[in-house]
Amino acid sequence: MPIKNAIEPDNNAPVNPLERLSGILDDDMRCVNELIIDHMQSDIALIPQLAGYLIASGGKRIRPLLTLACTRLFNNISERPFGLAASVEFIHTATLLHDDVVDGSKERRGKKAANLVFGNQASVLVGDFLFSRAFQLMTADGSLEILRILSDASATISEGEVKQLITTSNMATTMDDYIAVISAKTAALFAAACEIGPVIAEQDKEAQEALRLCGLHLGLSFQIMDDVLDYSANQEKLGKAIGDDFREGKITAPILMALKNANDEERAFWDRCLTKPKEQQEEDLPRAIEILNARDAHSASKELAMHHAQLAKDSLSKIEKSAAYDNALKEILCDIADYTVNREF
Amino acid sequence: MPIKNAIEPDNNAPVNPLERLSGILDDDMRCVNELIIDHMQSDIALIPQLAGYLIASGGKRIRPLLTLACTRLFNNISERPFGLAASVEFIHTATLLHDDVVDGSKERRGKKAANLVFGNQASVLVGDFLFSRAFQLMTADGSLEILRILSDASATISEGEVKQLITTSNMATTMDDYIAVISAKTAALFAAACEIGPVIAEQDKEAQEALRLCGLHLGLSFQIMDDVLDYSANQEKLGKAIGDDFREGKITAPILMALKNANDEERAFWDRCLTKPKEQQEEDLPRAIEILNARDAHSASKELAMHHAQLAKDSLSKIEKSAAYDNALKEILCDIADYTVNREF
Repeated sequence: MPIKNAIEPDNNAPVNPLERLSGILDDDMRCVNELIIDHMQSDIALIPQLAGYLIASGGKRIRPLLTLACTRLFNNISERPFGLAASVEFIHTATLLHDDVVDGSKERRGKKAANLVFGNQASVLVGDFLFSRAFQLMTADGSLEILRILSDASATISEGEVKQLITTSNMATTMDDYIAVISAKTAALFAAACEIGPVIAEQDKEAQEALRLCGLHLGLSFQIMDDVLDYSANQEKLGKAIGDDFREGKITAPILMALKNANDEERAFWDRCLTKPKEQQEEDLPRAIEILNARDAHSASKELAMHHAQLAKDSLSKIEKSAAYDNALKEILCDIADYTVNREF
Repeated sequence: MPIKNAIEPDNNAPVNPLERLSGILDDDMRCVNELIIDHMQSDIALIPQLAGYLIASGGKRIRPLLTLACTRLFNNISERPFGLAASVEFIHTATLLHDDVVDGSKERRGKKAANLVFGNQASVLVGDFLFSRAFQLMTADGSLEILRILSDASATISEGEVKQLITTSNMATTMDDYIAVISAKTAALFAAACEIGPVIAEQDKEAQEALRLCGLHLGLSFQIMDDVLDYSANQEKLGKAIGDDFREGKITAPILMALKNANDEERAFWDRCLTKPKEQQEEDLPRAIEILNARDAHSASKELAMHHAQLAKDSLSKIEKSAAYDNALKEILCDIADYTVNREF
């Protein structure tokens, strides 16, 4: 179990590999954060207010960290990944703003969701603004290959979000549908964030594909565990109430696992709660958690996440054929793959 | 007064210059429309359904026509403007989808607004999808200069939309504020649609700047008259009910003109109706139109539009210094500038 901010006596490093990576890439991330602040500015004061509200409230910054790590992995020391990492974070922030409008979210990162503070209208428009800023940053970088990777990822993300809308409250949703949704809405940006690293570092197509796949499986593992944590996390650490997916009628990994072995009563329960989420009663969420535990749905989901974490590590091992890479960074990326499964929030 | 589809005995051409331009660029526009249809496809059926609902319902296609005209103006015959004109139309369509969500629109192009048919959530996400598709098309074209022009325009559009949100129901809004809003939300994309023409045709910076300014002033004239027509058009021809801006509390050119000479009673009327638009009574819109007529607000707004139409034509005349240009197309662009002022819908 990772202990946040704990210092190990033997190497003085915190156990959480994302924090270890943040530590190693501290100077880089400072540059990325400066660019994020610079580029969210506008004469229209509401824009930096709203964007800053979400961006300053933290978040793991996992996607820009991945872009930096996957560039430095090949011993590339250029400043190019800064703007591109900021661009990746802007795309992510734009999708969060639009997601929260679409989901009618109440909380995000331990604070009231931006749509509740600033309104749905401003959230939609500032999302559009950040999305445009992302493309301005990519254009300033000038790589058409990276523009292709990130514009493809952006289109895929919105396809995933629309598919999620369709599968919500739809009890015919299969595990394949679910994997298709999370591959698009989450894993596509993880994949792109990683893939642009070897492009910046001018590596061959093989390395590029290895990092893309690594990011894709990292993203899948990350999202599957996100969906598990939505039922099982410590609310304070998660930064929002648990049960959001349940209340929205989203059919996620734990539900699909529980449905595999559901008896008639359980099936009727899921059907009632998920197809008409607005009619849920107060006692329904505790009952849902009870069934998920009884059916080992979290363990089964975690196994699926572990499978993808392993595939992420397998993809990463393919760069061993490359001329030169930083083994310490490679090891941390492997640890992050494990961490996506073992994280508590 | 232009007569739609009328045939003039002397030249067999319809008077409406946009239709004349459509006629001349018919083959080109067919290619653009094919690309639009191709690129709005997705495995997620709801995406082409929703996008197609709005795109198939017509619209003037003025922006892609401008891109084509401003390329062909320099006797360039390449296929490059097709994808870029489609890209410009996708950006426009994405902003319409998001606008209609933000404004809670009921009608668009003579049909129920997409947000009412498909829901706000799907409209937001399909808008994001079309926006991404626009950048995929630009990336496929490969010009970083055009990517810069269109990503800058996209950021400016969303800034304009946010500023519009802030000035709505705000009686302190000045004519400068209004011009800033419409320069950003409308004229920036007209400017970009025109500016990319000379870039494709490899003209010098002077021609590029001339066409950018031409588009900017065309867009201003177009939007000022749009705001006049919102109070004065024939509803059937307009494709939606008049008075939308009034019911939303938007402070547009006619209102600002009427406020200049308003007496106390009128000022109190505008104040009540625009600051609390939801509390408007049925008789308020007819009264508003009555005051606008009494204060010659439409004529004053039309004069402002004519001023910008003239500036558009002045900018266009600067290309006369260029090596070679198609005079027939230049004349039609001048006619379109006049038409933005004289159109009825």
